[in-house]
Amino acid sequence: MDLRDEPHHDGSPLYLDDEAPALGSHVGVRVRTSTAQPTDAVWVRTVEDGEPFYEQCTVETVETVQTEETETVWWRGRVHVRNPVERYRFLVVRGDSFRWLNAAGVWDHDVTDAHDFTVSVYDAPPAWGRDAVVYQVFPDRFARSAAAAERPLPDWASPAAWHDDPIHEGPLTPLQLYGGDLDGITEHLDHVAEVGADTLYLTPVFPAESNHRYNASTFDEVDPLLGGDAAYRRLVDATHGRGWRILGDLTSNHTGDTHEWFRRAQVDPGSVERGFYFFDENGGHEGWKGHGTLPKLDHTDPALGERFRAVVARWLDFGLDGWRIDVANMTGRHEEVDIARDVAREIRRVSESHAVDPLVLAEHGHDATGDLPGDGWHGTMNYYGFSFPVWEWLHRTDRPVPSFGWPVDLPVRTGPQAFTAMRAFLASFGWRAVTASWNILGSHDTPRIRTVTGTADRQHAAAVLQFCLPGVPMVFAGDELGLEGTDGEDSRRTMPWAERAHWDTRTMAVYRRLADLRAGHPALRRGGLRWLRIEDDEVLFVREHPAGDVLVSVHRSGTPTDPDHPEAEELLHLAGDAGARIWLLPRRDVRS
Amino acid sequence: MDLRDEPHHDGSPLYLDDEAPALGSHVGVRVRTSTAQPTDAVWVRTVEDGEPFYEQCTVETVETVQTEETETVWWRGRVHVRNPVERYRFLVVRGDSFRWLNAAGVWDHDVTDAHDFTVSVYDAPPAWGRDAVVYQVFPDRFARSAAAAERPLPDWASPAAWHDDPIHEGPLTPLQLYGGDLDGITEHLDHVAEVGADTLYLTPVFPAESNHRYNASTFDEVDPLLGGDAAYRRLVDATHGRGWRILGDLTSNHTGDTHEWFRRAQVDPGSVERGFYFFDENGGHEGWKGHGTLPKLDHTDPALGERFRAVVARWLDFGLDGWRIDVANMTGRHEEVDIARDVAREIRRVSESHAVDPLVLAEHGHDATGDLPGDGWHGTMNYYGFSFPVWEWLHRTDRPVPSFGWPVDLPVRTGPQAFTAMRAFLASFGWRAVTASWNILGSHDTPRIRTVTGTADRQHAAAVLQFCLPGVPMVFAGDELGLEGTDGEDSRRTMPWAERAHWDTRTMAVYRRLADLRAGHPALRRGGLRWLRIEDDEVLFVREHPAGDVLVSVHRSGTPTDPDHPEAEELLHLAGDAGARIWLLPRRDVRS
Repeated sequence: MDLRDEPHHDGSPLYLDDEAPALGSHVGVRVRTSTAQPTDAVWVRTVEDGEPFYEQCTVETVETVQTEETETVWWRGRVHVRNPVERYRFLVVRGDSFRWLNAAGVWDHDVTDAHDFTVSVYDAPPAWGRDAVVYQVFPDRFARSAAAAERPLPDWASPAAWHDDPIHEGPLTPLQLYGGDLDGITEHLDHVAEVGADTLYLTPVFPAESNHRYNASTFDEVDPLLGGDAAYRRLVDATHGRGWRILGDLTSNHTGDTHEWFRRAQVDPGSVERGFYFFDENGGHEGWKGHGTLPKLDHTDPALGERFRAVVARWLDFGLDGWRIDVANMTGRHEEVDIARDVAREIRRVSESHAVDPLVLAEHGHDATGDLPGDGWHGTMNYYGFSFPVWEWLHRTDRPVPSFGWPVDLPVRTGPQAFTAMRAFLASFGWRAVTASWNILGSHDTPRIRTVTGTADRQHAAAVLQFCLPGVPMVFAGDELGLEGTDGEDSRRTMPWAERAHWDTRTMAVYRRLADLRAGHPALRRGGLRWLRIEDDEVLFVREHPAGDVLVSVHRSGTPTDPDHPEAEELLHLAGDAGARIWLLPRRDVRS
Repeated sequence: MDLRDEPHHDGSPLYLDDEAPALGSHVGVRVRTSTAQPTDAVWVRTVEDGEPFYEQCTVETVETVQTEETETVWWRGRVHVRNPVERYRFLVVRGDSFRWLNAAGVWDHDVTDAHDFTVSVYDAPPAWGRDAVVYQVFPDRFARSAAAAERPLPDWASPAAWHDDPIHEGPLTPLQLYGGDLDGITEHLDHVAEVGADTLYLTPVFPAESNHRYNASTFDEVDPLLGGDAAYRRLVDATHGRGWRILGDLTSNHTGDTHEWFRRAQVDPGSVERGFYFFDENGGHEGWKGHGTLPKLDHTDPALGERFRAVVARWLDFGLDGWRIDVANMTGRHEEVDIARDVAREIRRVSESHAVDPLVLAEHGHDATGDLPGDGWHGTMNYYGFSFPVWEWLHRTDRPVPSFGWPVDLPVRTGPQAFTAMRAFLASFGWRAVTASWNILGSHDTPRIRTVTGTADRQHAAAVLQFCLPGVPMVFAGDELGLEGTDGEDSRRTMPWAERAHWDTRTMAVYRRLADLRAGHPALRRGGLRWLRIEDDEVLFVREHPAGDVLVSVHRSGTPTDPDHPEAEELLHLAGDAGARIWLLPRRDVRS
């Protein structure tokens, strides 16, 4: 698909004057067309109180690039922000017909509003959260401080040696304890710096009778096995000392069945905590996906709301810079009840009154459409809009690769298939939420990217997409060393600190280079996204920003495109059986 | 596009066991695949409390048709109805890849949930409302009884002779009064019977200072100019006497500025009615699309709620069988407030307690996605999912044809363009709502279909789509005679009772034949919809039903497909520069 001459708009500064305009105001918008696809008129359509309204755009500038045969026409229009999340799209007229331009692309047939552009009046996500490179740590598997060896193991634990492979199936899986702790993380922050990350995200640190700690026994203290509150204090201070941020992980959908709230609820049907959960007449209770050990919380209960808000507040007061909210997609949803948005809004509101510019990010293992309007979660762990398309495009094909969440292996997809899906999901989430969402190549819940791709070259191509597409790269600790893992449990392998000789330092260098490029070029953090070509085995896109555009080509076989741009300055060139090239293009003053 | 061998499912009886299952139950579903596209496995995916779940389907039957080379494989699965509107789709596996099957079709890339199938636990729309042929009457223009000539004209009116053309632009447009009345309608019910309709829908009959009466002065009586309550009584009784139904038209979004509520609100800022509208500090008020003469109602006001519910109830008590709700898409929506669903639900609830099986249908001049979950409006006036695609495909191309609502003329579209749009909108609305929604070729708000198509043959082709696609045909009075009209106002031409010689009786016969076919074949009312071919100038689809399938071919040029089915019984053959053929196929017991 050659998309170079298609009409374009997105939510980036070049195209949208204000990403958080006031309700009732008019916000300026730009559309770009090419004379290669002559355009007679452009209209912006808003949907206000449920009804479409049209306003004509005018030509602002015609931009001529000497080396190109065609000219770029810049149109200006305005969007009346009648509703808090205002939907808009463009009607692009040519002769006796027209096309619609929405966030998923250009259409020669009518389309529903599902992929309209949106602009939200709610406060934008924190700048640091959108500019970050996030490094995800699973505490039990990252690093052990000297103190870790001294700590007595709890009864439930099955001790593992650091070099043991995870037992990734069976009853021992959640019990196998390697003993990583918080001081271990603090001691290895230089490594995180070497990767180029500046935001730490730790999976849960609350006490729980498992190695993953998603089944918390309390939210009131840090697990002593991890070093307790004092070690957390040291880690938080150390990250802040480097000018970094640190995020916690909170399960809002459920607790463990060993949680103090649940225990009280179980033993005392008259307790306040009884209302926190879904008990049936026989004393049974709802659990996450039917797991009784993970009792689901009932957020319609006002007393739970109060208790939960206190937890949210407490650890931000302690020093966290925000939360990653576990199973946000199910939180507040139960049969006929859906108060997911209210819960999100409350967690955001409390966070904002207990921290400066906190980030509140939703785990959403599913289609987050409609869950990111801008007053709750700032963004999501973007599996559907990033990970899935990238995995589908770049996975090894010599043998089946397990998917995450599907009952079948990853399908083989061409570029147009994978990236058409990506475009639709990003359109659905909305531009602003996308720029705050995490581009994930893997996590503690999925196969490792190296195992998915099979080769370092393909992993590097994936990393280029991770760092260069809109969104925030989240690196799962160990990916930068080329660690493998066939599923979420197997991926929780320990960091091989003692085997430095086996590190894939070339991969580590690629991550670092990409982090530096991202830090150095606003276009890669805040620029628009214009797809130029999407072919079976290659994609070419440009991140447009007033400070200068960055052109990115990624291929999974063959050789990549030449930029065909005399002023392009090459920033990166990864060659191999798959690879990528990145160029900086000069700033074009015509649009500012 | 050849779609004959694509996997298929829809919400019709053949594919979904229960269209209104109980919350928490499991409902059986079928998928049909063809051995021409070998399928290794089929999974049904539900989204429960925000999380996807998968369950495998099993092969129920392999159906062999002697005359066909391929076999049809019927798969069975079940959907866990966890949420009131349960979303589901199918994952269709072939070799190392898979496709998604949702309500908009089959996809070789990932798609958002927007077009998932849905099943709703709320009561299904009334059977009569789904089986109906609706005839729309604009009272001022339909027929004058003898009494009409006697009635004194109000001051605001500008009298018109019956054969005058409507003044379709300028200040006189709403004031030009032809004097049609309710007894005039009662006197012409034989004509409605001749068309084959069995449900009358009248645009508003409440007093108002305009010919369209959408700016009501009261909801408490029928306009004396129309004959008042007594004439309405006669009309309601006459329609019921024929075993027909009759629907009113209620403006829930606004009233006229002459409405008794608004007048009281204006003169007395302390009145209860003040809260019914959106007044600003300076005494100004919100109006529909900025028109001060149509003050917008504020449904957040509980006193308005009570007053409005009384209106809804009163006329159902009088004898109406339901309501068409004007500007439903904007009702209850205002800046940061959106209680549209609550208003719809209340109107439905009150209707159901004041009439047996009432129909509550939303005018929705826009994308009704999300507005038809099943507990409020039963369906919509389906402009986006029916009228627009049909107009785009069948409009005359020798000169521009005005659109309805767009700032540009109707675009020229191919079959795949027009019907891809239709499939997406129908998917978005949900099967059950589609079957209760009105297929409209024109209304008092749009150009007339004859003017759109330019020829009778093309109008007939459009009528075949109107009567044979899922949904309820709504015939705008006069369309059956070939009346013309270039826009909504111009379309409000009077019925030419005195010029019977000029009636297009061939067109009238086509409508009647289509109404009879619809009445005679359950497949045309309740059958599924499986597209077989969508070409630039021709479409072929089958309505599948246990009682027998109906095959429909419509073409806009050239000659239509031969059914290539030895047992097909031809029911209709319309030849010309455009035309259609309809065949009955024998019942296949294999699926029952």
